[in-house]
Amino acid sequence: MSLPTPATPEAVFTYAAPRLKFGPGAVSEIGHDVAGLGARSALVVTDARLAATGHPERVAEALRSAGLRAEVHDSAAVEPSDASLAAAVERAKGAAPFDAVVAVGGGSSIDTAKAVSLLLTNPGELMDYVNAPVGGGRAPEQPALPLVAVPTTTGTGAESTTVCVLDVLAAKVKTGISHERLRPVLAVVDPELTATQPPGVTASAGMDILCHALESWTARPYTSYEHKTPEQRVPYCGSNPISDLYAEKAMRLLAGAFRGAVAGEERARTDMALAATFAGMGFGNAGVHVPHANAYPVAGRVHDLGSAFRPDGYDVEEAMIPHGMAVASTAPAAFAMTFAADPQRHLTAAAWLDPQGLDADVPEPERLSAVLRRLMRDIGQPSGLAEIGYGEADVDGIVSGTMQQQRLLATAPRVVTEEDLAGVVRASMHHW
Amino acid sequence: MSLPTPATPEAVFTYAAPRLKFGPGAVSEIGHDVAGLGARSALVVTDARLAATGHPERVAEALRSAGLRAEVHDSAAVEPSDASLAAAVERAKGAAPFDAVVAVGGGSSIDTAKAVSLLLTNPGELMDYVNAPVGGGRAPEQPALPLVAVPTTTGTGAESTTVCVLDVLAAKVKTGISHERLRPVLAVVDPELTATQPPGVTASAGMDILCHALESWTARPYTSYEHKTPEQRVPYCGSNPISDLYAEKAMRLLAGAFRGAVAGEERARTDMALAATFAGMGFGNAGVHVPHANAYPVAGRVHDLGSAFRPDGYDVEEAMIPHGMAVASTAPAAFAMTFAADPQRHLTAAAWLDPQGLDADVPEPERLSAVLRRLMRDIGQPSGLAEIGYGEADVDGIVSGTMQQQRLLATAPRVVTEEDLAGVVRASMHHW
Repeated sequence: MSLPTPATPEAVFTYAAPRLKFGPGAVSEIGHDVAGLGARSALVVTDARLAATGHPERVAEALRSAGLRAEVHDSAAVEPSDASLAAAVERAKGAAPFDAVVAVGGGSSIDTAKAVSLLLTNPGELMDYVNAPVGGGRAPEQPALPLVAVPTTTGTGAESTTVCVLDVLAAKVKTGISHERLRPVLAVVDPELTATQPPGVTASAGMDILCHALESWTARPYTSYEHKTPEQRVPYCGSNPISDLYAEKAMRLLAGAFRGAVAGEERARTDMALAATFAGMGFGNAGVHVPHANAYPVAGRVHDLGSAFRPDGYDVEEAMIPHGMAVASTAPAAFAMTFAADPQRHLTAAAWLDPQGLDADVPEPERLSAVLRRLMRDIGQPSGLAEIGYGEADVDGIVSGTMQQQRLLATAPRVVTEEDLAGVVRASMHHW
Repeated sequence: MSLPTPATPEAVFTYAAPRLKFGPGAVSEIGHDVAGLGARSALVVTDARLAATGHPERVAEALRSAGLRAEVHDSAAVEPSDASLAAAVERAKGAAPFDAVVAVGGGSSIDTAKAVSLLLTNPGELMDYVNAPVGGGRAPEQPALPLVAVPTTTGTGAESTTVCVLDVLAAKVKTGISHERLRPVLAVVDPELTATQPPGVTASAGMDILCHALESWTARPYTSYEHKTPEQRVPYCGSNPISDLYAEKAMRLLAGAFRGAVAGEERARTDMALAATFAGMGFGNAGVHVPHANAYPVAGRVHDLGSAFRPDGYDVEEAMIPHGMAVASTAPAAFAMTFAADPQRHLTAAAWLDPQGLDADVPEPERLSAVLRRLMRDIGQPSGLAEIGYGEADVDGIVSGTMQQQRLLATAPRVVTEEDLAGVVRASMHHW
């Protein structure tokens, strides 16, 4: 169903991104960079697995060499919850004051650091700031502590965005805190930090990058909204000329580097890091839609399946679906569903991702889906939701979980109904 | 002459840009935006010509409606000098304290506001901060007051950059203050503010946009420098993957909009504003080189020529060369001179700017120059330096003036000698 025509179309878009330092060895300069913020002390937030690699402690040493007091907290949980974030905040308050926060890790560490930096300067509790209706939806009155993000996986783009995603345990729902004040002031992207990433992680995290780019590229355009007042503006304003630039370039980089990166090529790793950064700079302003909305229930409901599925490259004892894999799991069918909203954008993306035209003979409405399926097969993604353990009995539950993500569905280029989603989920059981 | 091969090539690039609010009507939200910085009072800096249009007073009214104390100073001179900037700073200090500065105008107003915002929070005199050896080259210890830039001409890109350009009168030299702390925190780009721009101004300012894009696209790559220490890093790091993106998009927009904008098409005006913003976001990180370096003496020495030249669209009583016209005046010959440093980049740019391939039969080393000459002729730029009043007797003087701009020449993709420059100036006497 087409979007309604706005009475007074939006004419204004906004764009913001952290300062960026990119390149192999970039993290070695972090002492200078954090001191340059005027900070005399900094808290390094990471998770336990990454702490074991020594990277966070080396960051802390670099901060100390620049004259700062620095402390490392391995307080980030793999999938942050209200409980894990509150615990990280309490631990940080106990060790405070700090002038800055440095996140070292993947999306979970960066999101945990966002919550910590927010609550070290603002009053109240974590849940006060969580999106309504689950939380209080309070806007932070004070700037957060300046946050420097050092991503160690090439995927999430959390270093560029204004969102902290969390599970609210009592409500059994994934939601977030979203505000401009949560955006890091500086992203330090050092491809050498991803050198030890297993191929399975590169594949799933890479699908997250790709879907960030594809979803922001196909997001409803900012001009399709009603004209907002300045108070109504949010960081995610729909596709716009700047997010389009970054999404295009991210897709072109992925077309050349994704398969090679999974195969372990070093040069491809740098391009993947750049693609992740670009995709983050794009979707961090445009937004994402159906595949990311579906990812919440697809990842969330696997725990109740008793599935034997274990993703390659992740050291887990129970069934678990990595975020990027969950996002990708319904992407081919989702883009077939959104095709009619803007055929040209879907075809252009297919051409960027398939520069050799291997799928050029596929009928237009299915072409982008075909390009995605071939890529997913090549890099070892599951053959569909059925391989993970889902079946017809799970369709309604996934659809109702997705319908709770109205903030994301509102960015889709068409009205998305329960029936549309059920069709997407069913078509995602077997990709090949 | 080729650049020397670095012993340890640079591997890291940096990128920064202000937050952006873009679109017709965007300036009406400025009260909300400045209040959102936490400011309770703001100084609006503009020039006398623009003050007469009422735009700056309307900005002040919008600030007052949002509860701020606001004052307008028409303290920007058309070409800022050390004297005009010092006077603007003194006047601002007399009316202080302010929490923020809002610049409304072209590059001169924005640059004046940069000096004001710097010296309202940092000790010492203006000349302490001017680039050595002309000034003291002091780095500001404190953040400047937050600066919001509202450009009213589609050209300079000053809203994105870290530089304040000024004439130092006693030394008879144009130089600048350059530091990350001078970058505006927010650029509000409202194409409606440029609606009354005369065609001649659109043409010259548009050539500035085009040369920003072309010079940053052809700037020496960041990897051609020796590896810097963090202390050595400057905002201009050479061409890099992000500045390339913006330069490309700016050129593609110009190819479609430049002639139409000079002819007064409204839709083209929005694209020109976007191209100006993109070019600023590119060159504000990569840098510019030979055409901009030549522009200093070309514009500066016209006052001593006794020339009858008066540029269309500028209300001036004496000979004067608008900045963009001065930049463009040697651009065709300059890009012929730099061609061999990277033929592919020059040819790609020519193809973007000439999508119909009207100059596709020109020999490769001259093709970009031919595309520029045809454009400059179409939009009414002078037929060469001779039309402005320059001749063979002026070549040495222009060359020696350009050689003083080593900060810019250092960004060129090849070593540039006096002989090279003399060839460029001679070849720029008659474009057609």
